[in-house]
Amino acid sequence: MIDNSFLISCDWGTSAFRLRLLQGKDSPTIVAERCSPRGILTFPAGDADEFQDYLILELDRLFRAAKLSREPFPVYLSGMITSTLGWKELPYADLPYPLEGTRAVLAYTLLQRVYGTHELVFISGVRSKEDVLRGEETELIGILREPTLRKWVSSCVAVLPGTHSKVIEILDKTILNFRTYLTGELFDVLLQNSILKHSVQPEPNAGEAGLEFFDTGARRAASEGLLDSLFTVRTNVVLKGLPRDVNTLYLSGLVIGTEVHSILKRFPAPTPILLGGKASLQSLYARAFRALGETSRVHAVPEEVTSIAAALGHWGLRPLVEQDPFRSAS
Amino acid sequence: MIDNSFLISCDWGTSAFRLRLLQGKDSPTIVAERCSPRGILTFPAGDADEFQDYLILELDRLFRAAKLSREPFPVYLSGMITSTLGWKELPYADLPYPLEGTRAVLAYTLLQRVYGTHELVFISGVRSKEDVLRGEETELIGILREPTLRKWVSSCVAVLPGTHSKVIEILDKTILNFRTYLTGELFDVLLQNSILKHSVQPEPNAGEAGLEFFDTGARRAASEGLLDSLFTVRTNVVLKGLPRDVNTLYLSGLVIGTEVHSILKRFPAPTPILLGGKASLQSLYARAFRALGETSRVHAVPEEVTSIAAALGHWGLRPLVEQDPFRSAS
Repeated sequence: MIDNSFLISCDWGTSAFRLRLLQGKDSPTIVAERCSPRGILTFPAGDADEFQDYLILELDRLFRAAKLSREPFPVYLSGMITSTLGWKELPYADLPYPLEGTRAVLAYTLLQRVYGTHELVFISGVRSKEDVLRGEETELIGILREPTLRKWVSSCVAVLPGTHSKVIEILDKTILNFRTYLTGELFDVLLQNSILKHSVQPEPNAGEAGLEFFDTGARRAASEGLLDSLFTVRTNVVLKGLPRDVNTLYLSGLVIGTEVHSILKRFPAPTPILLGGKASLQSLYARAFRALGETSRVHAVPEEVTSIAAALGHWGLRPLVEQDPFRSAS
Repeated sequence: MIDNSFLISCDWGTSAFRLRLLQGKDSPTIVAERCSPRGILTFPAGDADEFQDYLILELDRLFRAAKLSREPFPVYLSGMITSTLGWKELPYADLPYPLEGTRAVLAYTLLQRVYGTHELVFISGVRSKEDVLRGEETELIGILREPTLRKWVSSCVAVLPGTHSKVIEILDKTILNFRTYLTGELFDVLLQNSILKHSVQPEPNAGEAGLEFFDTGARRAASEGLLDSLFTVRTNVVLKGLPRDVNTLYLSGLVIGTEVHSILKRFPAPTPILLGGKASLQSLYARAFRALGETSRVHAVPEEVTSIAAALGHWGLRPLVEQDPFRSAS
């Protein structure tokens, strides 16, 4: 009999792999974790054996980190791992998507090990007519479980910044719609691959004073538009002698400010805005909201929640999985 | 005595080099030309000797192409060759900039050859408070000289598409202001360096039917914004099965449509819109204007003018240069 106070959470995204051993009753404690940059793009697309081998390796390391003997606890997996490029492609769940996860598409397989058999629970993404989520829906399930956040998440616009920022419209604990902004990726390709790379510095260290230029960028993008403004990153240096590290923050302000401006146009007050993301990015987004005149309805999710949101979501899906009549079918 | 019915025009940009031997009285004929991809970025930044050696090489080739003996005709140079990264950095001319070129900053040097001494005439760019032109001002001088275009260029918004598209406000034959859009470069970096590269095909060959998706992209960007729309390039393929070559045109529509939408917002009717650029790009821009409902005030500059606009501009500057009291000073 497996000790069902344990669960293994695997958040396997495009560029990161995160494995956690959770234990608890209502809410979980993280007993041990393993994080690596082995996102799915570092594997041959769709090669199940490679993904499985890596998971086995990391499971062993996880138990070693936990100083526990290995046990066949169930492993919940979400993120890009269920995409075309991942281990097991799952069809998307449709909208509206209740944040109890009742419409999640689940798939089960077994992973045999000498010490027993792990049940693998793959969790689908969600699609709208023209956009897709892969993992963020599970993170929101996790965030919604936090008592202090519940009233914010129940009905709000959730902004989850990242390489592909997701802006998700939630009404009555249900995802109604969402949109992906290429914000983080656009910043990266401009920084690394465009003529603007000569005018910026990849790791800015400009301090608080430099952040004023982030605000300037955000406001400029909001009033003039992004494409109209990008060349000013070059002329800031050529004509105005702005230091390149400060100028990186200006470019960041242009790009993030464009997204934030779009969010504010699409979702006027009083819709609450729930802001997730890792701490550094979250603080820039919060700053952009302030620069564009919006503070009172923006609520930041604490880092201790955002950093483990997927794991909390997996924990939240457990009752559903345990009662799933299709569970034994695979 | 140099035969002053001849002039050599050198349009030396970021990624292209164009040398032309012109002959004429009021308007010139192109006797011979040499074009190469040796834009200034293919030389060590600011290395005068390297630029000079290459010019000498190409001058010899130009006379060979013309089947003429070599003569020390004056060489007019404009474009990025007068930037920090070029041969001879010149300060920018200021706005307003009359399209007779009377405020152009000119600099002279001599190029000694066995058959005589070429006078080199370097022509500056133009700056506003926050933007720069390098060469486009000279092209406009050339375009303005064409009798059939004069009434269009005298007062209009000139749109010169390219890697860095320039949108130039002209009133009474004078540049009042301008703005650079990173349109072409943004398209390239997204095509080559972003996740979208998996959803497009670099050399689309989708024909007329595919161009409908260019229009769709242009309209989508105009209504939803560019950053909000880029991810649909991916979902077009993942969710809708759109072929990748057609999808390239959609991405092109998104990016060009964003610029065109911005131009229409900034310059409402009845301001005439003069459209330059090389033929393929010009036809996409014209299409974007149509897709966004604007046709009657858009006038396309014929390719026989756009392709030699810089040379026409050099020819137009000749009287000014020949009367310049500072000419002998250098």
